[in-house]
Amino acid sequence: MSNQTIIIRDAKELASLTKKIQHEGKSIGLVPTMGYLHEGHLSLIRAARAKSDFVVVSDFVNPTQFGPNEDYATYPRDEQADFEKVQSCGADVLFIPTVESLYPNGQGSTWVEVQNLGNILCGATRPGHFRGVATVVTKLLWLSRADYAFFGEKDYQQLTILKRMAADLGCPTEIIGMPLVREADGLALSSRNVRLSPEARKQALSLNHGLKRASAAFKAGCRNAEKLIWEAQAEIATEKDTEIQYISVANPDTLEIYNGDVPDQAIMLLAVKVGGVRLIDNMRLDK
Amino acid sequence: MSNQTIIIRDAKELASLTKKIQHEGKSIGLVPTMGYLHEGHLSLIRAARAKSDFVVVSDFVNPTQFGPNEDYATYPRDEQADFEKVQSCGADVLFIPTVESLYPNGQGSTWVEVQNLGNILCGATRPGHFRGVATVVTKLLWLSRADYAFFGEKDYQQLTILKRMAADLGCPTEIIGMPLVREADGLALSSRNVRLSPEARKQALSLNHGLKRASAAFKAGCRNAEKLIWEAQAEIATEKDTEIQYISVANPDTLEIYNGDVPDQAIMLLAVKVGGVRLIDNMRLDK
Repeated sequence: MSNQTIIIRDAKELASLTKKIQHEGKSIGLVPTMGYLHEGHLSLIRAARAKSDFVVVSDFVNPTQFGPNEDYATYPRDEQADFEKVQSCGADVLFIPTVESLYPNGQGSTWVEVQNLGNILCGATRPGHFRGVATVVTKLLWLSRADYAFFGEKDYQQLTILKRMAADLGCPTEIIGMPLVREADGLALSSRNVRLSPEARKQALSLNHGLKRASAAFKAGCRNAEKLIWEAQAEIATEKDTEIQYISVANPDTLEIYNGDVPDQAIMLLAVKVGGVRLIDNMRLDK
Repeated sequence: MSNQTIIIRDAKELASLTKKIQHEGKSIGLVPTMGYLHEGHLSLIRAARAKSDFVVVSDFVNPTQFGPNEDYATYPRDEQADFEKVQSCGADVLFIPTVESLYPNGQGSTWVEVQNLGNILCGATRPGHFRGVATVVTKLLWLSRADYAFFGEKDYQQLTILKRMAADLGCPTEIIGMPLVREADGLALSSRNVRLSPEARKQALSLNHGLKRASAAFKAGCRNAEKLIWEAQAEIATEKDTEIQYISVANPDTLEIYNGDVPDQAIMLLAVKVGGVRLIDNMRLDK
């Protein structure tokens, strides 16, 4: 790639650069991440590079989307490795703001909240999480003046909420979801995987196995939510260090949770702690 | 003025026009109003015209900022008169969206809320009002891609909240406050003044008289909030059809309400129903 990636740490500096770019008539693509980049993130950056004239990747572990007992402090970080990966994908800017730069008036005065969608699934065990996500993404969209913003389908609820937010608020940014990326053995890529012990890493495969088993049952004609959930549970609950937070079958557009009958298009979503590390995964259920 | 004002009613049409304008490198000024324009609004439009390459005026009586027992249905409207005034000030676009165009998914899914500042003063008697304002202004800012947005200081709390929201969320729009405009006899201009009976119109002058009396006391050295409020009350409460909702002395930047001692820079804000019509007014208190 010929592009030289520059690192920007100050929100105002990013804002004035993107204003200039936009006034030149160029399109801007944004890839918001929490850093510790893996192949899933890189697929987003490559998609942004292909679609936009100017690509901004943000690395920001956003404190306002973590609860008091969550892993904000231990969330993995590696700025130098991130820079090299972003550079190799040809992004123009790696934005690594300080907390003070992104929250100049402290945290918690202005919030963007998507009601209802933010309280179910992950929101039920992580109160305030999606309010923190919607708020920081609003900031990043405004600072980057993005025409396109790219998010992985691994965080499926997040993607659905951000699409809803953008539509509700007349946000000019197109929110684009990209396919979940897995390891060769099926584990969904996540920055948190690095915190799995070798034993937990093996047990974590049960998430993918559970989803595949439910998907196979769906293809075989099962249209009962509880039965489909039971299929996934049968794989996951038998691993000794797993703690299921939820397994749900939902409408893939609205995230309406199904009980009993399920139509011919659905999605299964789950969150499981494996050896103390919280992992999420999901899979479309198709005929 | 050589400009021909065009009327746009569809949010998507406005969004694509402003995108084109911005990609041409032109600056955009927005004047959000609820219509029924008076000289106060026109001063905002003229300021926008002087500062921006492209001027958008919006006329939208936003349902989500009215409470169930408020005057949404009876708020005065006159589209043709508004168009002529906007045209005379040389604006490029008069945006008159339908409710459905601005709320395509219905009202009340995504909200932008400025905590604390939205619950005091007018917010105390109008719960949800400023959440509705912050949300619709976010939409208008995103749809218009404004570099500047102009608001009158008559709605001083609204202006303070919007400045705070823009700063908190990294919004690239500069929020600009313009001086309150009064009738020759001192009544603050308001679209609601048309609903005052001749008798109420006379009594409404007591708001300005009260503020002037408090201001005179301040200049004479009074620095006690309750005493300053009493001075204003003495003018207003003696009119028979007035019902005071609040009279407060506050920090002009943060709206921190003063009790007892007041520093050398402050602002008095008040809301009073006069003959059933709710009016607001304010005045700086300076040495």
